[in-house]
Amino acid sequence: MSVPVSTRNVPFQRLAVIGFGLIGGSLVRALRTLPQPPHIVVHDASEAVRARVRELGVADAVADTLEAAVAQADCVVLCTPVGTFGVIAEAMGPHLKPGAIVSDVGSTKAFAIEAIAPHLPEGVHLVPAHPVAGTENSGPDAGFATLFKGRWCIVTPPEGADTEAVARICDLWTAVGSNVELMDPPHHDRVLAVTSHIPHLIAYTIVGTASDLEQVTESEVIKFSAGGFRDFTRIAASDPTMWRDVFLSNREAVLEILQRFNEDLTALQRAIRWGDGDTLFNLFSRTRHIRRTIIDAGQDTARPDFGRETATPSGAAEE
Amino acid sequence: MSVPVSTRNVPFQRLAVIGFGLIGGSLVRALRTLPQPPHIVVHDASEAVRARVRELGVADAVADTLEAAVAQADCVVLCTPVGTFGVIAEAMGPHLKPGAIVSDVGSTKAFAIEAIAPHLPEGVHLVPAHPVAGTENSGPDAGFATLFKGRWCIVTPPEGADTEAVARICDLWTAVGSNVELMDPPHHDRVLAVTSHIPHLIAYTIVGTASDLEQVTESEVIKFSAGGFRDFTRIAASDPTMWRDVFLSNREAVLEILQRFNEDLTALQRAIRWGDGDTLFNLFSRTRHIRRTIIDAGQDTARPDFGRETATPSGAAEE
Repeated sequence: MSVPVSTRNVPFQRLAVIGFGLIGGSLVRALRTLPQPPHIVVHDASEAVRARVRELGVADAVADTLEAAVAQADCVVLCTPVGTFGVIAEAMGPHLKPGAIVSDVGSTKAFAIEAIAPHLPEGVHLVPAHPVAGTENSGPDAGFATLFKGRWCIVTPPEGADTEAVARICDLWTAVGSNVELMDPPHHDRVLAVTSHIPHLIAYTIVGTASDLEQVTESEVIKFSAGGFRDFTRIAASDPTMWRDVFLSNREAVLEILQRFNEDLTALQRAIRWGDGDTLFNLFSRTRHIRRTIIDAGQDTARPDFGRETATPSGAAEE
Repeated sequence: MSVPVSTRNVPFQRLAVIGFGLIGGSLVRALRTLPQPPHIVVHDASEAVRARVRELGVADAVADTLEAAVAQADCVVLCTPVGTFGVIAEAMGPHLKPGAIVSDVGSTKAFAIEAIAPHLPEGVHLVPAHPVAGTENSGPDAGFATLFKGRWCIVTPPEGADTEAVARICDLWTAVGSNVELMDPPHHDRVLAVTSHIPHLIAYTIVGTASDLEQVTESEVIKFSAGGFRDFTRIAASDPTMWRDVFLSNREAVLEILQRFNEDLTALQRAIRWGDGDTLFNLFSRTRHIRRTIIDAGQDTARPDFGRETATPSGAAEE
């Protein structure tokens, strides 16, 4: 689908951001760096987070209640775990301005629509979106203005969505540096099951397995983690609440891809047991080129070891 | 076990490095930066690689034959895939100097000893070692002098190994900046199955699974890889020959840990199917602290997203 683009400016006067974690905090910070930022009201359910946002001074206002946050907004963006969407939509529904656009940044889109849509009054538009970006950090201090730069944001309008509303949400993400792609919600959920949900599930699993072994101590796992394990721990340090909600809300697609993964892993297990080196070598050769393609697509760094500061390329400065 | 240390200088006059890939190339480069480097002879089975080493000018000599490389050496370090160890040991055995020490950098140690030991003449010492360090790159240009700095090197002497020879191999790795730990070979193989071999196997598998799906295109996988998948592709870009040999030579330990991983993954799969959020949340919370411990132990960077250049911490410069 082609992305409708009406303007490159943020097409909202007053924006409400609900939830100030990694993504909400990055969105607010990114918008503030624009030449003509919208008026931004932040609400977070946590009093401590609200206090921190006030200290940071990155929002035009911090609202103590959800109702106050959304009352004047042209656009409300939910940046909370997807499991909260139903409750939040129900609570804010009656307070939304006619013509307002409701969006979100959740990682599962069919669920987001199911949870939010029933609570929105006539004349309010729902245009969900998912910025595919993040780090392992969470909380009000985790966000930064460049998080979305060069990353993709997938906009997933429900059937029959208002074209103008869709265009405005696309513009919002374009304004903070994202590339925007439209996708239908169930397809989004399957694509993200592969590129994000299953990798997280596997990383959480192996880190858990490693810490439960009797014959290998946790201190050994930590000491010798540079052999590959440490890469998995980065992902397995992601926010537990957010990720619990992702798996519960994208069950079908996750279980489907997991089944495929299991079959493939079983085939490799069998190849190892029977000493079938060709099967191993063929797969290991095939997977190499995908990384090169990801780097060429600008979605990762070409520096060895992700450019970790201990990994100095040949010829570079020595201490 | 405590590490015997006789001196902090490289305790060899003449060193032969067999195989000039990521690890061999890094070892040679690291040794060259020392105040008193040993005389280093490099041999690689590939004529193209030997030509490249000559161009790079990092070795004192490049030998066209294995025999010529080892003939004068006090110490020979095998830096080739473990599957080649038996053939190389058999070929070089008759040409080794009395009193020489043979070592290697292979990822599986019980196998390395089985493959090499039978071919060494009386009076030649075998002291295998494994520097737990690397990047996804391979070939003669992949290495760099600081690769081993602050990383662990595990030295795995066979039963009855000469204490002085063990101390000298420990010194070699200390000299290039590694922390050295002694371990018995089978225990090494189990620890590395957890911290390195299984993570690689899983990464290879998921990257293969993703590229085989019918409903999600490869271009979608690449575009939206920033959701977690791209971290796995780094590991899955590692050298295919080396990794085939690792799995074939550490079969028992890999299959044992894989069995545990499978059980744990099945439990999570079941939790997702039945909507058991508590099981998911509890695991996801437990795995978080391991990353913190790895960072505290100096085995990874604390910068978000591994410090990828697109991930700028809050408050840092914007473009």
